Amino acid sequence: MEMNEKEYSKADVIGVYEVPAPRKAYVVLLEGEDWNGYILPIMIGVAEASAIQAALEGYVPERPMTHDLIVSMLGALGVTIERITIDALINNIFTATIVLKESDKHIYVDARPSDSIAIALRANAPIYVANRLLSSAIPKDSLSID
Amino acid sequence: MEMNEKEYSKADVIGVYEVPAPRKAYVVLLEGEDWNGYILPIMIGVAEASAIQAALEGYVPERPMTHDLIVSMLGALGVTIERITIDALINNIFTATIVLKESDKHIYVDARPSDSIAIALRANAPIYVANRLLSSAIPKDSLSID
Repeated sequence: MEMNEKEYSKADVIGVYEVPAPRKAYVVLLEGEDWNGYILPIMIGVAEASAIQAALEGYVPERPMTHDLIVSMLGALGVTIERITIDALINNIFTATIVLKESDKHIYVDARPSDSIAIALRANAPIYVANRLLSSAIPKDSLSID
Repeated sequence: MEMNEKEYSKADVIGVYEVPAPRKAYVVLLEGEDWNGYILPIMIGVAEASAIQAALEGYVPERPMTHDLIVSMLGALGVTIERITIDALINNIFTATIVLKESDKHIYVDARPSDSIAIALRANAPIYVANRLLSSAIPKDSLSID
């Protein structure tokens, strides 16, 4: 599970968008820094879309929402969120890993990309995307994003 | 934050129900063991209602949902979820605490009741409700629950 830096690109979250589909769906768009204008769309649920959007807006709710709770829980335990990685596409589903650090020890937790991103944004942890996922990326120009 | 056992009752989750309201809302019902047929209704969001319902049904998703992630993360860190407590009603909002145990140390994390219950059910951790909240409880007989 150790990340080979050459095989991953640091990525930024462009935003969360509603997908015009038969049923309501959301997509989060990630832009790899070494991807020359290609972006990776990942389909996510409505609750996770809302959690990512709140973090992008810097919205601080009166009571901790679920991903705020995760971050405060890890803080109370003295655990750092070192990075998250989007690793693979298995059966049409993206997998991710949350990399925690406790003292000198790294702990790797299997997670969905949506939860991982919602947590990374709150903890100011970097997001990395495996370069092999470039095959699922699309040119940024092909989308009409503000 | 240390719990005085005399001031709390162990509680069971009766279920999650949709509330017939102008807009879609959900309620989780808790029954205190020492409450003589009184139950505590707590309004919760749709995502949390779904997370609690999945746990009640023992539904195991293909990929970890957010509360599954919390439980697996704590497991990977060697942290036990000792109990959760529903503590107070402040400005019409219930507050809760997740009590974690790491080695011999207790760690108290402020949380919403909905997240706390969704986590407790997955971790088989006991749920306690402050007896002073009995004033917000209603007789079980007054509801038509299957």
